[in-house]
Amino acid sequence: MTPVSDVPVRYQLIRKDTLSGARLGRVTTPNGAFDTPAFMPVGTQGTIKGLLPDHVAATGSQCILANTYHLMLRPGEKTVAALGDLHRFMAWPGPILTDSGGFQVFSLADINKVTDEMVVFKSHIDGAMVELTPKRSIHVQNDLGADIIMAFDECPPGDAPWEVQRRAVDRTLRWAEKCKVAHQRPTEQGLFGIVQGGVNEDLRGECAQKLIEMDFPGYAVGGLAVGEGFDAMKKVLGFVTPMLPENKPRYLMGVGFPRDIVTAVLTGIDMFDCTIPTRNGRNAYAFTAAGAIRIRNSRFTKDTGPIEEGCDCYACRTFTRGAIRHYFFAGEMLGPMLVSLHNIRFYQRLMADLRQSLADGTFTRFVENDPRCRLGPAAPAEDV
Amino acid sequence: MTPVSDVPVRYQLIRKDTLSGARLGRVTTPNGAFDTPAFMPVGTQGTIKGLLPDHVAATGSQCILANTYHLMLRPGEKTVAALGDLHRFMAWPGPILTDSGGFQVFSLADINKVTDEMVVFKSHIDGAMVELTPKRSIHVQNDLGADIIMAFDECPPGDAPWEVQRRAVDRTLRWAEKCKVAHQRPTEQGLFGIVQGGVNEDLRGECAQKLIEMDFPGYAVGGLAVGEGFDAMKKVLGFVTPMLPENKPRYLMGVGFPRDIVTAVLTGIDMFDCTIPTRNGRNAYAFTAAGAIRIRNSRFTKDTGPIEEGCDCYACRTFTRGAIRHYFFAGEMLGPMLVSLHNIRFYQRLMADLRQSLADGTFTRFVENDPRCRLGPAAPAEDV
Repeated sequence: MTPVSDVPVRYQLIRKDTLSGARLGRVTTPNGAFDTPAFMPVGTQGTIKGLLPDHVAATGSQCILANTYHLMLRPGEKTVAALGDLHRFMAWPGPILTDSGGFQVFSLADINKVTDEMVVFKSHIDGAMVELTPKRSIHVQNDLGADIIMAFDECPPGDAPWEVQRRAVDRTLRWAEKCKVAHQRPTEQGLFGIVQGGVNEDLRGECAQKLIEMDFPGYAVGGLAVGEGFDAMKKVLGFVTPMLPENKPRYLMGVGFPRDIVTAVLTGIDMFDCTIPTRNGRNAYAFTAAGAIRIRNSRFTKDTGPIEEGCDCYACRTFTRGAIRHYFFAGEMLGPMLVSLHNIRFYQRLMADLRQSLADGTFTRFVENDPRCRLGPAAPAEDV
Repeated sequence: MTPVSDVPVRYQLIRKDTLSGARLGRVTTPNGAFDTPAFMPVGTQGTIKGLLPDHVAATGSQCILANTYHLMLRPGEKTVAALGDLHRFMAWPGPILTDSGGFQVFSLADINKVTDEMVVFKSHIDGAMVELTPKRSIHVQNDLGADIIMAFDECPPGDAPWEVQRRAVDRTLRWAEKCKVAHQRPTEQGLFGIVQGGVNEDLRGECAQKLIEMDFPGYAVGGLAVGEGFDAMKKVLGFVTPMLPENKPRYLMGVGFPRDIVTAVLTGIDMFDCTIPTRNGRNAYAFTAAGAIRIRNSRFTKDTGPIEEGCDCYACRTFTRGAIRHYFFAGEMLGPMLVSLHNIRFYQRLMADLRQSLADGTFTRFVENDPRCRLGPAAPAEDV
C-alpha cells in the first residue's frame, strides 16, 4: 500500500446518518478541499459553458470537472501542459477532476475498433484515427494535471447483456491495473478506480472487490444513468456503495437530476457530476423547488419575479423572468448564461442543505420533506 | 427655457485643455453621474453581448446604451415598462442612454417609405409593417425609461449629395421640434438634439444653430462614421463641436476606434458609444496598446501571457492567450466573453487616462505620445 502521507486525495468522514448510508465528509486534494456530498459542474472543453470562473465560484462550487476526451483532441494535452496545467488553463485554482475519456469514447465517438488493449476511434474534429489505451489516458491526465484522475474503463450501454458486461468488467479490471502502473504523478494526482458491471450484482460485486484490492485513493461507480432506469440504478447503488471502503471518497459518475443525487447520497455516495444544470440551462430550462420551468413560456413575458423566488444567485438577484425570456428569444448569450448560473446555484444550494441536514442529524426528514429532493426528469408543469 | 432645477441631465465643466477644445467634465442624470470624456458600451437588445452587468461595471463603464429600434420590435417597449423600465430590465442601476431608432431604421431596416411625417419599414422579426414617427420614437423611449433619450433624426449615408443632406436637415429640425413636444417625461429624461448635415459646413452650422435655439439639455453630432472617412469627420467636428453650448454635454454617435475618439475629444466631444469593442471581441480581435491582435492566430497556441501585458481586466488577470484561443476554436462562449470584456476595459482605461491627463494639464502630450491614441481600423499586424 502507498504510505498514507503520500496519498494526494484523502477523505475525512465527519458524520454518518443513523438511518441511511448517507455521510457528511470532506475531500482534501493538493489544490484545496471540498465538502461532501459534493456536486461538480462540468467544464467539458475546459470551461463551464457560459460562466466566468468567478461566477462558478459564487455558486458555491468547490471542485469542477473537465473531459479528457475533448481536451486531448483539442487543444491537446501538451498544449494545456505548456499553458501551465488545467488549473491555469481554466483559471480554476481549486480542485479539478478529469474523467478518463472512456465514457465519451464509448458513447460519443465513431469507434473503429475495441480490443483488450485499446479503443480506436475517429476524431470528431479532423477525422484522424486516434488510439486510446489505459496508459495513454493516464498520461494525458498526467499532462492535464487535475487533482483527481480516473481509470480508463469500458462503459457498455445500460441494456447490454450479461456477456457484454462480463467482458467490460474484465477489461475494466485489467485496464485499472495498467492505469495504476502508468500513473506518473501518484503523489500529486489521486487516481480513482471505476466499478462497472451494469445491473448485475455478481459483476458489480466482483469488480468492486478486485478494485478495492488494488487500493485506489477513491472509487467511482460508472455505467449508471446510461439507460438502465431509476429503479435499477437505485438497486445497484444500494448494493455497491456499501461495499466501497468507508475511508475513501465515492463518486457516482454523470448523475443526475436532484432525485437521483439524493437517492445516491442515501446509499453513501459523496461526489457527483452532471451536465444537466448547464445543458438544460442553455435551453431555458430552469430548476425551482416547485418544479422546473421553461423560461421561454409566454406566461413569463411580463413576469417581474426572479427565476426562483428566494434564490440568492446572481441571476435571481438581478434579472426578471421577463427579461431573461427576452434574451432567449433575441438569441443573446445572456439568457443561457443566467439560467446556467441559476441552475448550478440551485444544485449547490441543495447540496449545502443536504450537508447541513447531515450535520444536524435531520437528513432523513429533510429528504422526505424537501420538494427539491423529488425533482426528476419529468417535463416542466407547463409542458404537460 | 426649462427652469434649470427641472433639467434632468446636467453638465459640469471641470477643466478645459489650454491647447485644444478638449474638456474634462461630469454628466449628472437621475440615476447617477458619469465622468467625461466617457465611452458607453452598447447593449443593442438590452444586454452588452456576453457580459453580466457586474463585469460591465468592473470595466469602469458608468453609462451604457441600448437601442430603441431593437427593443421596440422585441420585446416591445410596453413589455420593458411592465418589467420595471430599462434599468431593471438590463440590471443596470446607473445611467442609460437610448438612441431614437433613426440610425437603425435608415441603415438596417427594409424601408418601405419615408415621408416628412414618418418612416415605414418592415420588422426584421416578423415582417410586419412598422411606422416610426418622431412622436412614436419619443413615446417608446419614455416607456423604456433611459436617463438620456435622443431626438428622431434622418441620417443619410456619408456620400449622399448636398440636396439629400439638405432635406435630412430640414426633417431633422422639424422632427426635433416634434420630439420636444411629444416628450412626456421632460423632468426625468434628458432629450438630446442631433446635428445632421453630412460633410457640409453650411448645413451643419444651420442645423446646430437652430437646435441650440430649441434649448435641448445636450447635443449629439450624428451622421458621422457613416462612410465619409476619417479626415472628413475630423473636419466636420472641428467646425461643429465648438458651436455647441459649453454648458451642455456633447455626444458623438457611433464612434469609433480609439484614434477617432481621441480626435473628437480634441474638438470638445464628451460622450461616445460604439459596438467595436464587443463586436470585434466576439470575432477574437483584441485591442492592445501595441496594436490589435487576432487571438485565433496560431502563434498564440502556447502563449502563456495575458491578452495584453499590464491590463487589469478580469480576462487578463485570469486567462492565458493560449486558453482563450482554444475557447474560440472550440466554439465556447468563453472566448467572445473574455475578449469583449478586455476590449471594453481597454477603452475604459484609455478614457480614464484621457481624463487624468486633462486633470493634470498634460492632455496634448498624452495624445501625442500614447500609442493607443493612434489605433484606427488598420488590420492587426499579423494579418498584413
